[in-house]
Amino acid sequence: MSDNQADFRRELGQQLRVDSVRLAADAGSGHPTSSMSAADLMAVLLDGHLRLDYDNPHAPDNDHLIFSKGHASPLYYSMLKAVGAIDADEFATYRQFGSRLEGHPTPRIPPTDVATGSLGQGLPVGVGIALAAQKLDRLPYRVWVLCGDSEMAEGSMWEAFEHAAHYGLSNLVAIVDVNRLGQTTETMLGWDVETYAARARAFGWHAITLDGHDVEAIEVAYAAAEVTDRPTVLFARTKKGKGVAAVEDLPGKHGKPLDDPEAAIAELGGVRDLSVSVAKPESCSPHTFAVPGGSLPVWDTGSHVETRLAYGKALAALGSLRGDVVALDGEVSNSTHSEEFAHAHPDRYFEMYIAEQQMIAAAVGMQARGWVPFASTFAAFFSRAYDFIRMAAISRADLRLSGSHAGVSIGPDGPSQMALEDMASLRAVHGSAVLHPSDANQTARLVEEMATRKGISYLRTLRSKTLVRTSPDEDVHIGGSRTLRSTSDDRVTLIGCGITVEETDRAAELLAAEGIQARVVDCYSIKPIDADTLIAAARDTHAVIVAEDHWPEGGLGDAVLDALAGLDEPVIVRKLAVRIMPTSGTPEELLRAAGIDAEAIAAAAREVLASRHAAVS
Amino acid sequence: MSDNQADFRRELGQQLRVDSVRLAADAGSGHPTSSMSAADLMAVLLDGHLRLDYDNPHAPDNDHLIFSKGHASPLYYSMLKAVGAIDADEFATYRQFGSRLEGHPTPRIPPTDVATGSLGQGLPVGVGIALAAQKLDRLPYRVWVLCGDSEMAEGSMWEAFEHAAHYGLSNLVAIVDVNRLGQTTETMLGWDVETYAARARAFGWHAITLDGHDVEAIEVAYAAAEVTDRPTVLFARTKKGKGVAAVEDLPGKHGKPLDDPEAAIAELGGVRDLSVSVAKPESCSPHTFAVPGGSLPVWDTGSHVETRLAYGKALAALGSLRGDVVALDGEVSNSTHSEEFAHAHPDRYFEMYIAEQQMIAAAVGMQARGWVPFASTFAAFFSRAYDFIRMAAISRADLRLSGSHAGVSIGPDGPSQMALEDMASLRAVHGSAVLHPSDANQTARLVEEMATRKGISYLRTLRSKTLVRTSPDEDVHIGGSRTLRSTSDDRVTLIGCGITVEETDRAAELLAAEGIQARVVDCYSIKPIDADTLIAAARDTHAVIVAEDHWPEGGLGDAVLDALAGLDEPVIVRKLAVRIMPTSGTPEELLRAAGIDAEAIAAAAREVLASRHAAVS
Repeated sequence: MSDNQADFRRELGQQLRVDSVRLAADAGSGHPTSSMSAADLMAVLLDGHLRLDYDNPHAPDNDHLIFSKGHASPLYYSMLKAVGAIDADEFATYRQFGSRLEGHPTPRIPPTDVATGSLGQGLPVGVGIALAAQKLDRLPYRVWVLCGDSEMAEGSMWEAFEHAAHYGLSNLVAIVDVNRLGQTTETMLGWDVETYAARARAFGWHAITLDGHDVEAIEVAYAAAEVTDRPTVLFARTKKGKGVAAVEDLPGKHGKPLDDPEAAIAELGGVRDLSVSVAKPESCSPHTFAVPGGSLPVWDTGSHVETRLAYGKALAALGSLRGDVVALDGEVSNSTHSEEFAHAHPDRYFEMYIAEQQMIAAAVGMQARGWVPFASTFAAFFSRAYDFIRMAAISRADLRLSGSHAGVSIGPDGPSQMALEDMASLRAVHGSAVLHPSDANQTARLVEEMATRKGISYLRTLRSKTLVRTSPDEDVHIGGSRTLRSTSDDRVTLIGCGITVEETDRAAELLAAEGIQARVVDCYSIKPIDADTLIAAARDTHAVIVAEDHWPEGGLGDAVLDALAGLDEPVIVRKLAVRIMPTSGTPEELLRAAGIDAEAIAAAAREVLASRHAAVS
Repeated sequence: MSDNQADFRRELGQQLRVDSVRLAADAGSGHPTSSMSAADLMAVLLDGHLRLDYDNPHAPDNDHLIFSKGHASPLYYSMLKAVGAIDADEFATYRQFGSRLEGHPTPRIPPTDVATGSLGQGLPVGVGIALAAQKLDRLPYRVWVLCGDSEMAEGSMWEAFEHAAHYGLSNLVAIVDVNRLGQTTETMLGWDVETYAARARAFGWHAITLDGHDVEAIEVAYAAAEVTDRPTVLFARTKKGKGVAAVEDLPGKHGKPLDDPEAAIAELGGVRDLSVSVAKPESCSPHTFAVPGGSLPVWDTGSHVETRLAYGKALAALGSLRGDVVALDGEVSNSTHSEEFAHAHPDRYFEMYIAEQQMIAAAVGMQARGWVPFASTFAAFFSRAYDFIRMAAISRADLRLSGSHAGVSIGPDGPSQMALEDMASLRAVHGSAVLHPSDANQTARLVEEMATRKGISYLRTLRSKTLVRTSPDEDVHIGGSRTLRSTSDDRVTLIGCGITVEETDRAAELLAAEGIQARVVDCYSIKPIDADTLIAAARDTHAVIVAEDHWPEGGLGDAVLDALAGLDEPVIVRKLAVRIMPTSGTPEELLRAAGIDAEAIAAAAREVLASRHAAVS
């Protein structure tokens, strides 16, 4: 590195600091000190190592830069200004309503791949992009992730460390800004970068410790990172608020503008207007997978099939139709049946072991590169990655999730393995779809629809076999429903999904034997829900029983109530759901104990009709 | 160790294997091979190292044994039989409906502290119990945690490793059963116990590698674990299905009974009936904290206070009234204001850094020892620990959570920091309470109630100041509500919570100016909800507008609909909630953009009334 280049990089670092101070001062909030610590690291990256065509931010061969410490957004936007990706006018809109420059970066401002701001997520997402580079795109781009030292306390970081090493991701570089100070206190390790490095090495990484304000040392470290056979991590000793004595390495200076920004800017040498020309990547095309074609599986009505098996077979078939579909699983592929895909398309299957956070993050990373990931585990265990799913929605990620082993119907394994909150938690994800088919043909059609749907789609599957009622040529779609029974004499509507469809149908038979006609609706799409069908049924019967293998809160029952909320007619809705903590038992025992079996549904229907009769007479 | 003792231990190990095989065979499901690998490790633990009075399972000085690999429940129950804690009749009920011997252990069977079965949780909980031993109980008991090697892929394990070392938990011993084989494939590290050990050492632990079937080696390792100044981990090379050639170290044998249990039992030397006398701890009493007394804080009506600050001040006051209250925070105590407690009661405050999973697990561990933990972070970041909260409910844990920075009202930080799914996800936790006070006096009263409530209680607090409307002597309780406006002429009911209470009140003023009387209800308890008040309001007005700073799914709106579901009268409910992905902005801009401000509420009320008028005329 020439003296000139070193000087330029130092000046660029100072400019990034000054601009960070200005941004937070103008906005009246933000994290300037957390930006200042990493300014030199980013200056050297921009000027000499990053290969990213900011004019073509979605070019397949671009490097990727993820700010895992998303609160350093002042630094990030200062970099975008320095490379010419945003102009001075937009720069001035930081944190303002309508601006693309949000408090924490989101994909609204290219080339940002994903939203950050929940710590410990950027590096696992980086693993996903690096996996895409090596195994899918097969392109030489590199993934650079700026991490904070505070976020090293998040277990998800170590999932990323383990998976990156396991998969040999030499194209991944983590840059840890070890500024010692968290929001309220010193980190557990402070400036002990050697201990960090020892941990990273034990996890199989190439680890470098350095002074994060020494541009020569940074140059050497990046150069070394570019030639190893393993993922590389830099543990860079830095000072929070570097360059301004009033805040430098002082506690209590997190997440607030500087008290005297003008003095700080002067101390930093004043406002600069350097621009940096970032290297562009060599133009190359991503790999595509040839596919044999074929068709989605269908099953004969009247047969009995697990919907989880239907998921696996449909996904494998989809993989034969589309080369962009990929699958990930949390080491339970013989339970979720993603193994069907793994066997058919081993080069597009990713074993993420028992690390659900890393699994979701990897899927988010892959979809950022245009791949179409389906991630599966037990439905209950998506709760482990809920923050990652939440953030994926902010990342505008297109993601497909498949959770098996829904509800008490799994039987003897007990409540730890039963998903009973998944419909609630995943309904409450912005833009999500929540699907719970009752049979194999429904499942296959929904899997096909999920592949082209934007946003986060969640499919809930059953452990046990269910009767195939839906014929292969029926219309099944996201937002649809299936009416099993309907007459003009219906006095009550029974609504189920998944395992309770069989129970509602049996309940209708019990009621029919007593002369009570019941409409039965299989609400396989919980979000969006088929409001028209439900409203028509409620208008016709004015009595609705909803049965679901889920806690009473936030699932099918609440979705039905929401669909009927605007109806200006008296409609009694009775929600049957799991209201006691389940135990082990047979599926039948547990459905009965929870009060969601046919007998309980029929009893609720009788009760509602009797109460209305009593009120009328 | 004498030859006799070694022989006894080997025999005991074989008995535990035989009994594990029998249990799974009789139940027709379960994980015998995962039990057989760890049988020798547990035999030596029972006979010579564990100090636990099984006749007094909740004695404060008992050691604790956590099966982090909860699927090895056959081994666990076989141990309980060997120590005489369960008899042969109960032993035969494994996985049957009604039995305490569930598919994965729960506290229904003493002395089990917590439910396991979601991997990677037992060790973090063990950290909590070990912290309780050292810092709260101040007793010499030890915490032993049997871990699987597959679960080493969960990041939460490394949160536990880091925190245990940071807090010097020499009373914690992790026993990792490295049987190499996961559910579907070999683990990333296989039998490479030296790499595991290097990682643990880098994280500050005393790590021992050994042959997990060599009772002498196990004895040496446990003895070493009992005399160190650091947490100890054993990485024990074992064979899954050890002792039965048909399954030993073979893939595809996870989670199923043996094909020929009789032959397996014969190969293991037949059924035995050894009983083991476990050492009892020396009797000692736990430490208690003297408290100065005092009273809960109150604020003058008309003042403006952040509910998060009220949380901190109320919690600090509660800590002065009760010596059993403890607090934990995820390194944002100056945001959540748990710092008030930390300053007042530093010896009962635990900094868990940015490791929300470990924070919840530690709280679960502490409550297992009778302490009353309050854990706080940004409300959005409880999503990081959602699986831990789910499991805490199965553990029958009494846990208090406080999440700050609810909703879009936080303003410029952007959506990554905004809790918008927390009410939905936490309503869908069995036995939970979900509370969202609108002012400081409500907050303090609810904090007080949370301390004595069973189960999981969640308090949602606001970043910005709100007007104190509730006078200190008003009745505020879990399950209650507060009616701000009510007349016999009310034509519409406006329901809010938290920040939207102000908006509903302002909307009522706007409507009153137009001659429309509105009832206004502050629904500070979302679960349980004050159904009586809501039903009365719905009967009176037949038009309800609900406004919440949350996604439309699973929050206040759905809770209100649920409360009104049984009402056999026409009631239109309009849910106002956040339906677009928020960005940065001022709180006012974001409330307006989301359509949950006073103007939007008033407009919705007018619309509903107009539609009814049109329908009538």
